[in-house]
Amino acid sequence: MPDTNPTACLLVIGNEVLSGRTQDANIRFLATHLGELGIPLREVRVIPDVPQTIIETVNAVRAKFTYVFTTGGIGPTHDDITSECIAAAFGVPWEPHPEAWARMEASYRPGEFNAARQRMATMPRGASLIDNALSVAPGFQIGNVYVMAGVPRVMQSMFAWLAPKLQGGPKIQSRAVHAIGLPEGLVAEGLAAIQARYPGLDLGSYPFYRPTGNGVALVAKGPDGAAAEAAIAEVTALITSLNRTPIQGEPAD
Amino acid sequence: MPDTNPTACLLVIGNEVLSGRTQDANIRFLATHLGELGIPLREVRVIPDVPQTIIETVNAVRAKFTYVFTTGGIGPTHDDITSECIAAAFGVPWEPHPEAWARMEASYRPGEFNAARQRMATMPRGASLIDNALSVAPGFQIGNVYVMAGVPRVMQSMFAWLAPKLQGGPKIQSRAVHAIGLPEGLVAEGLAAIQARYPGLDLGSYPFYRPTGNGVALVAKGPDGAAAEAAIAEVTALITSLNRTPIQGEPAD
Repeated sequence: MPDTNPTACLLVIGNEVLSGRTQDANIRFLATHLGELGIPLREVRVIPDVPQTIIETVNAVRAKFTYVFTTGGIGPTHDDITSECIAAAFGVPWEPHPEAWARMEASYRPGEFNAARQRMATMPRGASLIDNALSVAPGFQIGNVYVMAGVPRVMQSMFAWLAPKLQGGPKIQSRAVHAIGLPEGLVAEGLAAIQARYPGLDLGSYPFYRPTGNGVALVAKGPDGAAAEAAIAEVTALITSLNRTPIQGEPAD
Repeated sequence: MPDTNPTACLLVIGNEVLSGRTQDANIRFLATHLGELGIPLREVRVIPDVPQTIIETVNAVRAKFTYVFTTGGIGPTHDDITSECIAAAFGVPWEPHPEAWARMEASYRPGEFNAARQRMATMPRGASLIDNALSVAPGFQIGNVYVMAGVPRVMQSMFAWLAPKLQGGPKIQSRAVHAIGLPEGLVAEGLAAIQARYPGLDLGSYPFYRPTGNGVALVAKGPDGAAAEAAIAEVTALITSLNRTPIQGEPAD
């Protein structure tokens, strides 16, 4: 599927995903919701809390994708270094953001807005705030980079605030059919022929292994819903020709 | 934590993770098991089934990390293009692998080892097979790149076969303490001072939000278990000094 839509890249920043301590929950959420906005996610990188890695990665991907989203590393502790690394990537000072500072200062009792918390109100010069309903500490945007929290429910709240402000293309449409007992090796040839007739779609084949039976889910995705519908009709006929029973939609979990 | 151990990068290859259709289950498994082998996972990239992207990414990361693992894209369908892309990345022919071919041919009834299935026995010249207990189709290794299936239980079976053959460093040790009702903003300053005294460790701070109470988990990781132990003892004293009760280990789920 050629990219006519704007594209997105996600940077998951944090040692905890790379060490296996944390099961990432942000990739799938953002993949799904960005797809609904017509901004397909085209790459994810999970990187550690290492300044040079963050700076180089941000600069590589912001030149390549329409939107870059980051999650993680914007809290108050020594390992939360995303914000200063983004400033370094953009070559701008990292300084108190007046609005974030005022909001956060007001939310703590006198004396409790300490140096660690002040770091959360310190941002690259020129950043705009990304609000959320759960915490007073905001994310921020600079250029095409959107910096969000790593805690899933805070990230989701930030994304809900952000989503109406993003410029998407046509929503990515998805149609699917599946068949129990159909090996991929039997359907592959016919499927490739259908894919060749629909260059504007991604036609995917996903084997599944379930107590109710193994089989394959065949999925057409693209901005043109009618094309996805037509391709899946052809896949359905292909399944029938292989003496299996096509079942519309995704397999039930 | 400076890298004295060998390092790993994981490439998750497949549109299905980027579209949100599939919740990735391979990152955490490999992160955990590679850590136990003393081969810390230092980067993950999730990339689509696009030849140029796969080829460029493989060449970028194989130059940078000791080990590169890939998951996904080695089945029989048109979107399974990992194998030929790895051949292109290494600049070697993509050709029938005699042993894989013989094994697979023998496992099908006459006439059923069709062109699609033959693709799964076609590999970069010079590849060594990676076996698994679940399917006759093998993964393979070429140079420092290890190509595995995307289906988690097949990948895990391949990794079990592979693990004893990998050269790791000292196992990454992990010690943790947590405290209910302790905001990160209070513990941050003391924590940074402890991190500064243990440059060979990664000291991480991970807030949690649970029905039993919010708090923070503080985790020390590194090849030196005694250092991790000592650092967590200091963190424990820090928690006590902040009038919270330290609880050894990770918070219960």
